[in-house]
Amino acid sequence: MSKKPFILLTNDDGIAAAGIEALFHELNKVGEVAVVAPRNEMSAAGHAITLSDPLRVSEYRKGPEFFGHAVNGTPADCVKIAYWAVLKRKPDLVASGINLGSNTGINTIYSGTVSAATEGAILDIPSFAISLGTYEKPDFRFAARFGRKVAAHLLEKGLPRGIYLNVNVPPCPEDQIKGVSITRQGQAVYKEEFDRRKDPHGRTYYWLTGQKVNPEQEIEVDDGALAAKMVSVTPLHFDLTQYAFLEELRSWNLKP
Amino acid sequence: MSKKPFILLTNDDGIAAAGIEALFHELNKVGEVAVVAPRNEMSAAGHAITLSDPLRVSEYRKGPEFFGHAVNGTPADCVKIAYWAVLKRKPDLVASGINLGSNTGINTIYSGTVSAATEGAILDIPSFAISLGTYEKPDFRFAARFGRKVAAHLLEKGLPRGIYLNVNVPPCPEDQIKGVSITRQGQAVYKEEFDRRKDPHGRTYYWLTGQKVNPEQEIEVDDGALAAKMVSVTPLHFDLTQYAFLEELRSWNLKP
Repeated sequence: MSKKPFILLTNDDGIAAAGIEALFHELNKVGEVAVVAPRNEMSAAGHAITLSDPLRVSEYRKGPEFFGHAVNGTPADCVKIAYWAVLKRKPDLVASGINLGSNTGINTIYSGTVSAATEGAILDIPSFAISLGTYEKPDFRFAARFGRKVAAHLLEKGLPRGIYLNVNVPPCPEDQIKGVSITRQGQAVYKEEFDRRKDPHGRTYYWLTGQKVNPEQEIEVDDGALAAKMVSVTPLHFDLTQYAFLEELRSWNLKP
Repeated sequence: MSKKPFILLTNDDGIAAAGIEALFHELNKVGEVAVVAPRNEMSAAGHAITLSDPLRVSEYRKGPEFFGHAVNGTPADCVKIAYWAVLKRKPDLVASGINLGSNTGINTIYSGTVSAATEGAILDIPSFAISLGTYEKPDFRFAARFGRKVAAHLLEKGLPRGIYLNVNVPPCPEDQIKGVSITRQGQAVYKEEFDRRKDPHGRTYYWLTGQKVNPEQEIEVDDGALAAKMVSVTPLHFDLTQYAFLEELRSWNLKP
């Protein structure tokens, strides 16, 4: 390739987060990186897009190298507006992350980080999301290097239309990482707790909090791979159709 | 069944919308309906959940029959808080809608209406989303009766774990509806336009707007069924894994 690959980098922790900066510096080694990311933290934004409010784009700079555009929207908004209005040419790759906290199992569907990669795949650009499985004292160095490795593979091999990758990195020191597992999305669900409180005016409010119940332990599952200190790489797609049930449903008498 | 079925009804257009009220009255004929819905319009909320702000629940009444709880959150929040904190018992069914505007093809993944049904399926409750394919002069009567029919089927037959239904109703008069098609999610993508404007202070902002390009015409696809004036019923699941690509990915050299 004579031209340097062009990489769109976004996230959902916001443009000022340490995770996106770590990935920026590594991706810079394999291509030209354009950062278009949410101005604010958008965790659990899901695949939201902003239709009712105008979007604004501003320049953002941090240190001598890190430059990008901040958007008052969601990760999916960022990919859309980057592609259709901000960038001068079509990216060769969309990278999203590094997210603080894993995006495995059922969390995949709530994840703004993943939704940005989904949006890249919709635009037929090889895309991946990458998350680090901790909220405490994150060390993004290994995850960022692994992200560069994934980026290099995707730039070389591409991905079939509609497929994108969800990468999760265990938070242990690099010399303890046991390898890479190609995984499916875990299906363990949450037992939610709504923490019920009274505000100073006597009104009730709730905080959502919960625990994943019995995540799968097999290393062929994203949760299980992380628990076994392996990097999890899950191929995703955005076709939610459950094909196996089409025939059963056709046997139902749903005539109006 | 001696006990009346218990139905949780929500939506993403907000508790005051005409669509949820129309469905409420029809579902009342097959069960006891508990409404827990967003206080405000949440369209394109995607599968967002609210982690950073407290949730508040207030009672809402409209006319002599329509009573429910309004939540300052997303459709997914509503199902979660209903299940874990508001309702006295587990619902036998989750219904979401009737949405103003179709949720077909790629829109399925942005849809708050669908995300509420997803959340019901995660909780292992038979669930469906229902949308009417118009924004203009909506007549919800047929869609509401069809929703009752789907509800009755689901209450009788249930659904396998992890599967839920996405129903879309064409906006034509009832006598022009050509039947029901069991469909897959369309894959046509949008050509977005970002409408670039200046505010009165001279600052640039953008409105997201776009057109779906070449939606599939086959009636086995949700978009095609609607275009052919058929009711579209798509079985969905929340496992985003693209299984067919697992093996190819295992052949990549991604060792750290």
